[in-house]
Amino acid sequence: MTLVDVLDKGYVRLVNHMGSDLTVVNAARVSYAKESTEWSEKDLRLIRFLAREGHTSPFRHVMLQFEIYAPLMVARQWWKYVVGSSHMEGTGDSLEAWNESSRRYITEEPIFYIPNPGEWREKPENSKQGSGQAIEAESGKDYTKKLMDYVEAGVQKYEEALADGICAEQARLFLPAYGMYVRWYWTASLQSVSHFLSQRLEHDAQKEIQLYANAVLQLSMPLFPNALAELKVHTNEDE
Amino acid sequence: MTLVDVLDKGYVRLVNHMGSDLTVVNAARVSYAKESTEWSEKDLRLIRFLAREGHTSPFRHVMLQFEIYAPLMVARQWWKYVVGSSHMEGTGDSLEAWNESSRRYITEEPIFYIPNPGEWREKPENSKQGSGQAIEAESGKDYTKKLMDYVEAGVQKYEEALADGICAEQARLFLPAYGMYVRWYWTASLQSVSHFLSQRLEHDAQKEIQLYANAVLQLSMPLFPNALAELKVHTNEDE
Amino acid sequence: MTLVDVLDKGYVRLVNHMGSDLTVVNAARVSYAKESTEWSEKDLRLIRFLAREGHTSPFRHVMLQFEIYAPLMVARQWWKYVVGSSHMEGTGDSLEAWNESSRRYITEEPIFYIPNPGEWREKPENSKQGSGQAIEAESGKDYTKKLMDYVEAGVQKYEEALADGICAEQARLFLPAYGMYVRWYWTASLQSVSHFLSQRLEHDAQKEIQLYANAVLQLSMPLFPNALAELKVHTNEDE
Amino acid sequence: MTLVDVLDKGYVRLVNHMGSDLTVVNAARVSYAKESTEWSEKDLRLIRFLAREGHTSPFRHVMLQFEIYAPLMVARQWWKYVVGSSHMEGTGDSLEAWNESSRRYITEEPIFYIPNPGEWREKPENSKQGSGQAIEAESGKDYTKKLMDYVEAGVQKYEEALADGICAEQARLFLPAYGMYVRWYWTASLQSVSHFLSQRLEHDAQKEIQLYANAVLQLSMPLFPNALAELKVHTNEDE
Repeated sequence: MTLVDVLDKGYVRLVNHMGSDLTVVNAARVSYAKESTEWSEKDLRLIRFLAREGHTSPFRHVMLQFEIYAPLMVARQWWKYVVGSSHMEGTGDSLEAWNESSRRYITEEPIFYIPNPGEWREKPENSKQGSGQAIEAESGKDYTKKLMDYVEAGVQKYEEALADGICAEQARLFLPAYGMYVRWYWTASLQSVSHFLSQRLEHDAQKEIQLYANAVLQLSMPLFPNALAELKVHTNEDE
Repeated sequence: MTLVDVLDKGYVRLVNHMGSDLTVVNAARVSYAKESTEWSEKDLRLIRFLAREGHTSPFRHVMLQFEIYAPLMVARQWWKYVVGSSHMEGTGDSLEAWNESSRRYITEEPIFYIPNPGEWREKPENSKQGSGQAIEAESGKDYTKKLMDYVEAGVQKYEEALADGICAEQARLFLPAYGMYVRWYWTASLQSVSHFLSQRLEHDAQKEIQLYANAVLQLSMPLFPNALAELKVHTNEDE
Repeated sequence: MTLVDVLDKGYVRLVNHMGSDLTVVNAARVSYAKESTEWSEKDLRLIRFLAREGHTSPFRHVMLQFEIYAPLMVARQWWKYVVGSSHMEGTGDSLEAWNESSRRYITEEPIFYIPNPGEWREKPENSKQGSGQAIEAESGKDYTKKLMDYVEAGVQKYEEALADGICAEQARLFLPAYGMYVRWYWTASLQSVSHFLSQRLEHDAQKEIQLYANAVLQLSMPLFPNALAELKVHTNEDE
Repeated sequence: MTLVDVLDKGYVRLVNHMGSDLTVVNAARVSYAKESTEWSEKDLRLIRFLAREGHTSPFRHVMLQFEIYAPLMVARQWWKYVVGSSHMEGTGDSLEAWNESSRRYITEEPIFYIPNPGEWREKPENSKQGSGQAIEAESGKDYTKKLMDYVEAGVQKYEEALADGICAEQARLFLPAYGMYVRWYWTASLQSVSHFLSQRLEHDAQKEIQLYANAVLQLSMPLFPNALAELKVHTNEDE
């Protein structure tokens, strides 16, 4: 499996990877000039020790490259993890690369994420951020329709502006951009990926980014089963 | 001067800084355990040599902290510089910190950038990105009005959704987010700042971010006149 | 106090700093556009929350610059922290700059760390790294003398080689370099500094680097008392 | 070919790599959702454009992992490139990982680089760093012998100290460490590798590290012929 669908039109695709669980233990043993070629009980004990004690540098020699297609609001939370953000986190780790599409010069038709009627959520009861239960079905139907109409009106104005000769970088002011799909490549070490997962699989992360984090996990787990297990990266039980 | 107004409601504020032109030359001379305390001709020759030869690490010991209030489309181009982006740039330099406001949990009234009638620009003649001359006055007036109406409609729907109990992280799908103001702190070394300026003062950068880059330059130049002069950071002649 | 002596001839000097405890809480509150100018109980609660939950990015807007004079073996363990190393650590945080003297082109007299007779330590009983109790006084005296003689012989050969016209970059092969003093500037965010301290104040860190870490702590604590207290950075009880 | 011998006992080994020339152009085209699977004239024009204009971020999705065995003085210059150093360079790029052996806890026999009689070089005529012609054969023979004796004496004292129960982290003060071989893994993006090469293949880099840089180039060139050619990475003509 190299592609997992997410939301109505998004996906995560594993483009490439380098290394395996063995890469981690071999990096940790560089002092001894001994290289394992087959996974053993000894390797398991070492990777468990490294993960438990926070000796994360050996996990930085394993790399993954993903292509992601997601609403801009997800992209923004993702890179906030990369750059380091206020109420989120910020390892400052930058063993990552990022190349993203831009609305400054593309004039293809923009594509938007529109929640299905059953996907609209209430605000949480005891928190300033996050979300709670699904709202009532009837109300959900109204909001899906309302958003479709509003997005359609925005796209129409955007296209009128382009047709009138206005530059794309200003015309885009008409787009309800939070839900607009963008596409990017993300190349990151296993240390970065597992840190991202440990943050974004959490209950208080936005539901939409949790779904993307789950897709990243599904694609990564078969490749590095021991490393990810010992780093305690796992989905929330209720998903 | 510590604050420069930009666009209709934005600004750049210099919050703090560390070091001076002398910090750069003293870092370059750490081998010799000699520290200049007053700027001299010899220091000028050294900083000129460092800048010309690309020996940029001594510029990394000088730090600046800014508070920026800008439309999200400007924020996104700014951080693309930080993370490294496709057709733009990418030093990968990460001697920077970034803390930004989020629409996931704030429920204050959102504020938007609306270009004045005279500020709408044509698409460029010979390029896929950027912009050209101002559009006709009459048409500009129409588009300013059209954008105000569309933004107002979006904000109204956003507030209805919040009033109906929908979580803020989904309600924001109704906001034409590219023009929405966000506020952030940016702490960066002089090396990072000058690299940012060299990219964002360019003609082919979006006009709006050029204006912010100019504000950063105005606030920085009096503090590090020699370093910035030798790094050849300067505004475009026609601005 | 801006300078703390370490070992026989080394020191840590605080060159400059930017920000205070308030910088941290103000960065965390950028969303609210509220800035504290005086430290309050509310700020303490916020910084405690940030430290406890690992929201470290606000700590990245505070910067410190140190000048350090230390044996090369200490410098190497220090930068291993910066770059990320095998059995040690590896945040990959790179909000740091580093400028160091080099023996490739300096031909000043090299200076060496020679442990006093009472400073030589036994190997630890139950560990492959670290050290135990002091060795016997008489034996310590012998080793101090032996090291002085060996270093002196090396320096003499180094100087003969230079006098014979051999290039400095090869002549230095005669120097017992682990104990040779080097000087560098280290500019790092409070997040980086506290991470460095949490690693290097540990019992299993080499004694010599623990002493340098203590000096860094002594110089930093008066400037950021709340931040460092909440980040649980403190010396080992038995020192 | 995956291993190149360097100096008397050192080597560079290509452990792994991820991507190809195509990875670079595909990352640059992520906006267009078009992926090349076969190299074409169009790809060549794009990679030439990216290299010429300094749009280096697409080169960050290609990764290489090397194992290196080199004298400590080479290791130190190598990591100075990584961390950023005074009279050298400093992109601050940190899309790299590094895991290195340590003399703090290994008690295997230390191995040293001893220049052959014909490898000792004069100091340069018009420069403070670097080196010039080979010294006279007879004198070279003397210095090789002198260094062998001095190293042997140091190793003997080191082993006596260990035998007397002194901890390894202090006993190593007897080792003429600049020439001591260390082993490490270096994982870096193609952008980092090409920047390293552009610095270390230069005439004014130390001869010994030029030889290692050449080995890295030999191992990388067959994998990314177009990217490296356009980035203008090449050996000095006279080598």
